[in-house]
Amino acid sequence: MGAPIAIDDPADPRVAAFRDIRERDLVGRQGRFVVEGTVVLRMLAAAHGKGRFRAETILVLENRLAGLADILSDFPDDVPIYVASAAVIDAIAGFNMHRGVLAIGVRPEAGFDAQALIAGLPERALVLAGCGISNHDNAGSLFRNAAAFGADAVMLDATSCDPLYRKALRVSVGSVLAVPYVREGDMLDLLGRLDAAGFAVWGLSPRGEVEIGDIPVSPRMALVMGTEGEGLPPAVMSRFRTARIAQRPQLDSLNVAMAAGLALYRIAQLQGKI
Amino acid sequence: MGAPIAIDDPADPRVAAFRDIRERDLVGRQGRFVVEGTVVLRMLAAAHGKGRFRAETILVLENRLAGLADILSDFPDDVPIYVASAAVIDAIAGFNMHRGVLAIGVRPEAGFDAQALIAGLPERALVLAGCGISNHDNAGSLFRNAAAFGADAVMLDATSCDPLYRKALRVSVGSVLAVPYVREGDMLDLLGRLDAAGFAVWGLSPRGEVEIGDIPVSPRMALVMGTEGEGLPPAVMSRFRTARIAQRPQLDSLNVAMAAGLALYRIAQLQGKI
Repeated sequence: MGAPIAIDDPADPRVAAFRDIRERDLVGRQGRFVVEGTVVLRMLAAAHGKGRFRAETILVLENRLAGLADILSDFPDDVPIYVASAAVIDAIAGFNMHRGVLAIGVRPEAGFDAQALIAGLPERALVLAGCGISNHDNAGSLFRNAAAFGADAVMLDATSCDPLYRKALRVSVGSVLAVPYVREGDMLDLLGRLDAAGFAVWGLSPRGEVEIGDIPVSPRMALVMGTEGEGLPPAVMSRFRTARIAQRPQLDSLNVAMAAGLALYRIAQLQGKI
Repeated sequence: MGAPIAIDDPADPRVAAFRDIRERDLVGRQGRFVVEGTVVLRMLAAAHGKGRFRAETILVLENRLAGLADILSDFPDDVPIYVASAAVIDAIAGFNMHRGVLAIGVRPEAGFDAQALIAGLPERALVLAGCGISNHDNAGSLFRNAAAFGADAVMLDATSCDPLYRKALRVSVGSVLAVPYVREGDMLDLLGRLDAAGFAVWGLSPRGEVEIGDIPVSPRMALVMGTEGEGLPPAVMSRFRTARIAQRPQLDSLNVAMAAGLALYRIAQLQGKI
């Protein structure tokens, strides 16, 4: 952990990365992402040094510095830790930053590609795949559930939203930094690769053939969630086996993250992961 | 359904209830709530006339009027339906109202009280109770899950947030208007009443004694969720039986709505509700 550096001027160029963070986040900054709060910071600390994500800068509310010492000490000396008063931080960030800590993270220059990710999975593996997941809350919740139930990887197609977007990362309680993932390509192609690697692929849909409690266990299983609203594309529904979750009739189907959680819990139990 | 009334002036007093709806919602307007979008409007139409909730006013985007005819026709003639262009509606509501329809609902003057709600429950019943549920997303998701898995009622203590708040209602996909609920009093008192009415009360907690798959079935069951972060109060944990949901260690516990959904699904299956 480097020595904390006091910032008194909101215009200080050393904290330029945090300026008006809410607005700029909407545009995205090449290769960077925003970390808010202690829970996600702890996940960034765990990820830093493992080679995939790293911390670039940390900005701490002065009265939270002591309380955060155990997390901050996990970062190496070359990650600058800036400290400022609430008034200065609010002026920098452009909103009331009650969470007490912000950080800028850096994405890996070369992310996992799907083939490399699949090649690295263990013999007994559980993968969560998402097709057209466009809502950041749902994307974050999918990662949170994937982590909770021991999924080994998340695979999103190119039409899904960025899980490192500020809100998605926060809702994931930082799990996006912990569960290996890709976001690329076409879902049928991704699922074809999983199939070729011995995965039993199951699409989840209100029109699924099998109740989730009756899914047979396989050493390698992949669960595919469709976009909110429209659900899984017909091409996925027709090529792979499908499962459903019993619910009361004549209601909107379950939220996608909720449905994924129910199915992951069931499969994780079958596979002995939880 | 009454004849639609065109509104050309954003300052028209007939649509005053919709003015700057986002800002005013934060303060709350006595006895009223805001409905956004067709899914929730459909639930309001179903609730209207059943004596609990009713619609006061509806405001429709002019190019959506034809598409909404089937829902609007479910409202009686004395509910005024105002129609306006996107520019006029945005000027009234103070934001881009892409959902195409807004309505003002009215709460019942006398809500259910807990005793009356419990007295009206069937012999085979499932109740979801929430203690200190302070996040509107979570409150909405709890109702959505309660409806999906056939819960007969939701009971919130007085420290929980208002599930008719705009965002909670939207996240619930309108289920707040469909599942009978109370929000009052102290959780131990509410649970004592359920216990006295023959309910097997189960608190859900990461420190619960029994895995949810091992909860024995009872004709009347109540599931209690604690506040985000702190979980259930010790007084609830010590007085009632408790259940847990297996997950990977050393992670944040599951989101409260996710945990409730997993337990409701299991209990609803045991009770034959789904």
